[in-house]
Amino acid sequence: MRIALMQLNFVVGDIEGNARKIADAVRHAKTAGADLCVASELGLLGYPPRDLLLYSGFVELAASKVQQLARELKDQPPLIVGTAERNASGKGRTLRNAALLLQEGEIKSTFFKSLLPTYDVFDEDRYFEPGQSPGVALVDGVRIGVTICEDIWNDKDFWKHQRYSSDPLERLTGSSTVDCLVNLSGSPFTVGKQEFRESMLKAIASKYHVPICYVNQVGGNDDLVFDGRSCAVGASGKIIAKARPFEEDILIVDLQGSSNRIAEDDFTVESEAWRALVLGTRDYVRKCGFKRVLLGLSGGIDSALTAALAAEAVGKENVLAVMMPSPYSSQGSIDDSVELAKRLGIKTEMLPIQTIMSAFNETLKVPFSGYVPDVTEENIQSRIRGSLLMALSNKCHAMLISTGNKSEVSVGYCTIYGDMNGGLAVLADVPKTLVYRLSEWVNRNRGNPIPRAIIQKAPSAELKPNQTDQDSLPAYDVLDAILQRYLEQHQSKEEIIASGFGSAIVEKVARLVKSAEFKRKQSPPGIKITDRAFGTGWRVPIASRQDF
Amino acid sequence: MRIALMQLNFVVGDIEGNARKIADAVRHAKTAGADLCVASELGLLGYPPRDLLLYSGFVELAASKVQQLARELKDQPPLIVGTAERNASGKGRTLRNAALLLQEGEIKSTFFKSLLPTYDVFDEDRYFEPGQSPGVALVDGVRIGVTICEDIWNDKDFWKHQRYSSDPLERLTGSSTVDCLVNLSGSPFTVGKQEFRESMLKAIASKYHVPICYVNQVGGNDDLVFDGRSCAVGASGKIIAKARPFEEDILIVDLQGSSNRIAEDDFTVESEAWRALVLGTRDYVRKCGFKRVLLGLSGGIDSALTAALAAEAVGKENVLAVMMPSPYSSQGSIDDSVELAKRLGIKTEMLPIQTIMSAFNETLKVPFSGYVPDVTEENIQSRIRGSLLMALSNKCHAMLISTGNKSEVSVGYCTIYGDMNGGLAVLADVPKTLVYRLSEWVNRNRGNPIPRAIIQKAPSAELKPNQTDQDSLPAYDVLDAILQRYLEQHQSKEEIIASGFGSAIVEKVARLVKSAEFKRKQSPPGIKITDRAFGTGWRVPIASRQDF
Repeated sequence: MRIALMQLNFVVGDIEGNARKIADAVRHAKTAGADLCVASELGLLGYPPRDLLLYSGFVELAASKVQQLARELKDQPPLIVGTAERNASGKGRTLRNAALLLQEGEIKSTFFKSLLPTYDVFDEDRYFEPGQSPGVALVDGVRIGVTICEDIWNDKDFWKHQRYSSDPLERLTGSSTVDCLVNLSGSPFTVGKQEFRESMLKAIASKYHVPICYVNQVGGNDDLVFDGRSCAVGASGKIIAKARPFEEDILIVDLQGSSNRIAEDDFTVESEAWRALVLGTRDYVRKCGFKRVLLGLSGGIDSALTAALAAEAVGKENVLAVMMPSPYSSQGSIDDSVELAKRLGIKTEMLPIQTIMSAFNETLKVPFSGYVPDVTEENIQSRIRGSLLMALSNKCHAMLISTGNKSEVSVGYCTIYGDMNGGLAVLADVPKTLVYRLSEWVNRNRGNPIPRAIIQKAPSAELKPNQTDQDSLPAYDVLDAILQRYLEQHQSKEEIIASGFGSAIVEKVARLVKSAEFKRKQSPPGIKITDRAFGTGWRVPIASRQDF
Repeated sequence: MRIALMQLNFVVGDIEGNARKIADAVRHAKTAGADLCVASELGLLGYPPRDLLLYSGFVELAASKVQQLARELKDQPPLIVGTAERNASGKGRTLRNAALLLQEGEIKSTFFKSLLPTYDVFDEDRYFEPGQSPGVALVDGVRIGVTICEDIWNDKDFWKHQRYSSDPLERLTGSSTVDCLVNLSGSPFTVGKQEFRESMLKAIASKYHVPICYVNQVGGNDDLVFDGRSCAVGASGKIIAKARPFEEDILIVDLQGSSNRIAEDDFTVESEAWRALVLGTRDYVRKCGFKRVLLGLSGGIDSALTAALAAEAVGKENVLAVMMPSPYSSQGSIDDSVELAKRLGIKTEMLPIQTIMSAFNETLKVPFSGYVPDVTEENIQSRIRGSLLMALSNKCHAMLISTGNKSEVSVGYCTIYGDMNGGLAVLADVPKTLVYRLSEWVNRNRGNPIPRAIIQKAPSAELKPNQTDQDSLPAYDVLDAILQRYLEQHQSKEEIIASGFGSAIVEKVARLVKSAEFKRKQSPPGIKITDRAFGTGWRVPIASRQDF
C-alpha cells in the first residue's frame, strides 16, 4: 500500500482555501500512485483554530465542506482528513476533534481524538469532548489504526510521567489487529523537537511491531511554526520515509517498498532556529495580508539579525530599514547599519529624531521642572522611534517588525510603545546568547551580511551617553542561564542559587521578570522556538506576588 | 451550627499575606461565635493563580503554609480552606484543586474538585487532575458535603445542556447523607450573574432539601472582578443570609437561626457595572503597587466616565487628568474637560501637542512626499498623546489608564500605541451604549460630575476637522446590537442579517472586528463585566480568515 502524507500549509479559518489545497494534493497523490491520502490534524480548519470553534457557523461550514469534498473526490484515492465535528452525545463539550475517512463519495468512517492536550499553547479541553478510543479504517483490506496527534504521546514505556491516565494506543492494539498506524498531527516546532518525535515514533513502531505514518502540517500560524517533517517509521523502528522540513511536501510512502524518499535535514540548533524564524516571519506577514516589512536598525546585533531574517523571509526588495539616530547614537552604529543594509540589499531611510526630542522636551518642560532626568527621557526617545516606524508602516502599508530578543523581553529591558512596537516580535523567543550564535551562523551560511563590528561591540541601547546593557544587567551568558532555569524549567530562586548563581543576581532577575509582566502582556506575537515562550502559552498574572 | 463565610480579598500569589488574612478572619469569626469557618476556592493562593501553579516551589510553599496555618489555628474553630495539592496518583496532571479541613492543629480531611472549568477565562484542565467525587466532612456531628465552585454547576434539572457528563452533587447525595453543603467558589463577576447564581443555588437546595453555603472571594485580579456576594440558602430554597457585595465581609450563618444578616444589594445593570469597574480599577492599581493614576481627557464621554470611575476608585486626590489639545480640538472639548475636572476635584495638566506635531511633520516630510494625508496623520496625533501620557506616568509613578470602550476596541476605532496606551483599559468591556447609561447613572447617583455638553455632543475623535465617529461607524445602538450578537452570542453574519440588520453593515462590522485583532492582542487588560470580554478568555487567531 502506498500512502500519501500530505504536508500542507493551511491558513487558519480558511475552510474554502484549505479544502482546495487538500483536493489538489489528493489529485497530485493519485498521479503519483497513492492508494490512500492522509492530511494533518484539523487540516480543513487550519491548526489551531482556537475560538473560531465557538462559532457554530464555522463548524457548519466545515461540515458542509467536508461533504462536498467527499463528493468532489469520489474517483480519487480515499482520504483521511482532520476536522471538527459536533459532539452528538448531548452532554459535555460541544465538539470533537475528528479524522474522517472520505471514500467513494462518502464519509465512510469517523474517528475521534482521545487525548486532548491542555498545557503550554494547547487548549483542546476548551473545545473538545474526548473520544473513547481510536478506531480502525479498512482500506483495500489494510487495517489502519487512526490516531490524532496527542493520542500517541502517552506511552508508559516511553514517558517517565504519563500525562493522561489512559493510553489510546494500548487500547487500540489490545482490541484490534492493525497493519499500520496513521497519526494526523498539528505539532508545533521547537528546537530539538523533531529528534524527540522521531525517537518516540521509533519506540512505538518497535513496541507494537507496526509501521506508523506521521503527518504534520507545515507553516507559521501566529506565534506557532509547524515544521512539517512528516515521516514514516517501519515496524522495525527505522525511519523509512521523510518529507522535506519547513516546506510543503506530498510524500508517497510505500509501506513495503525500499525506494522511499528520505529528505535531508539538519538538527543543529542554529539551522533549526533560522528556518523556523524565516518561515514564521514569512507566513505571518503573508497571512496577515502584507507583502512588505520595515524595521528600525539601531546598529546593534538584534536588529541586524532581524533584518537578515526578514530579507530571507519576504525578499530583500520588500524590506525597509530605518535608521533614527539621536545625539546619543554613535557614528559607528550609523555606519554599521548602512553597511549591513548594503550587504543585504535592503532599502534604507534615515530619520534623525533630534527635532522631535526637542519638541517633547519643550512640551514637558513645565510638568518636568524639579525632576531629574531618569528612564523617562530614554523611553521618550524609544517612543519617538516607535511612532516614526508606525507612521511609515501606516503610510506605506508595510508591517513593522520588532527586534527585541527573549532575554530583554524577560527582564523588561525594552520600552513599551517604543522599541516593542510591531506586528510581530521576530526574536521574542530567541535568547541573546542564541542571537550571537545565529548571527555567526548566518554570516557563515548566508554570505556574511552582518558586519563584524556589530557582532563585536558591547550591546547598548544608546539612550544616554556611554550606556551599555551591562550597566543594568548581568552578562548575557549568566542572564540566559538563569532565565533558562527560571522560565523554562520553573526552578525556584532557591534552587537556582543552590546550583551556583549569586543570590543577589538571582533575586534581581526574578524581580525584573515579574515586573516586566505588564509589558509582555501588550507585546506583539513572537515566534515560538523554545519549550516555554511568551505568548499564547504564557499565562502569568500581572497584579500579583511571586516570591519563589 | 454557625458557619462563617469568609469573603476575603486575596492577592494572587501572596501565600504569606493570604494566610495571614485567613487566620485573622478565623479569629474574628470565633469571637462572633462561629463553629466552622469556610474560605473561598484556592484562597490561600489567590484565585486565579494561573501559571504560578507550574512552579513546584509555589505549590510547596502553599503546602508548608497550610501545615503552619493548621498549627496556628489549633484552638480556633475548624477551617475549610482552598489550596492546590500535588496529585499523588503518579499519573495525569500534577495538581489537584483542593479543599482542606483544618481542625485541632491538623489537616483532618482533603477534598478535590471534580468539575474543572475550561472555557472562557477558565483553564483548570491545564493544571488539575479531577477528583472523583466530593466528600463529607464531619464537624461537631454535622455532615457537611464539601464542593468546590463548578462542582455544583452541572445539575441536569437546572441546565438545558450539561457541560460535563457527570454530576458530583448527584454522586455525593446518592452515596452519603449530608446535613449541609458548602461550596468554595472563585466566581468572577459579570452583569446579571448573581441573580443567576442565586436561582441555581435555590434550585439545588430545594432539589436535595439541604441548606447550602456559598463562599466567593471578593476583589479585582487583573481582568477579573470577584463580587463576593457569598450567601446561604435554606433547605426550602430561600436565601437566609447574604454577605455585602463588592467588599470584604465575614458572614456568620446560623443554619437554624432566624436572625441572619441579609446585605442589601442592587441588580440594576448600571449599579452592578459601576461597582465592578470601581473595584476592578482600585484593586488593579493597588495590587500593581501604584497609588495614583493619570488619564487623558479628550472632552468626550469615555474619558469623562473613566475619570469619574478613577476618582471613586483611588480617590480624587490621586487622579491626574491631562488635556492635550491639537489644532483640531474644539474649544468646547477643552472647556468641558476643565469643568469635569473641577466637578470631580481632580488635578489637571494642559499639554498642547502642536509643537510635537510640527516636529513629526518636518521629520517625515521627505518620506511622506507624494503621499496624501490619511489615517497616518491621525494616528501620529494619538501616539504623541500616548507618549506624553507615558512620559508623565514614568516621571510621576502614576499608572496610565486608557479610556476606550468595548465598541471601539471591537471595530478597531482606536490607535495602537496611542490612545490604547495604559496599564488598564477601564472601559474595554463596556459597550458605548452602556457608557451613556453609566454616565447618566453616575450623574444621578454621584453628584452630577459629567457636564451635560459631554453627554450630548456627537462622539468625535477630533483628529481632523469636523470629524465624528459616525463618519466611519454605524450609529452606536446599531453597532452594539450587532456586536452583541456577533461577539457574545457567536451568531454568524448570516444569522444577524436574517434577524433584520443590513448586510452591508454586518459585513463591514465583521470585517472591522477581524482586522482589529492585532490591536486587541496588544491591548492592556480590561475589566470583564460581560459574558464575553476581550482579554484572558478571548483566544482568536490573528493571521487567519473569518468568513462566517
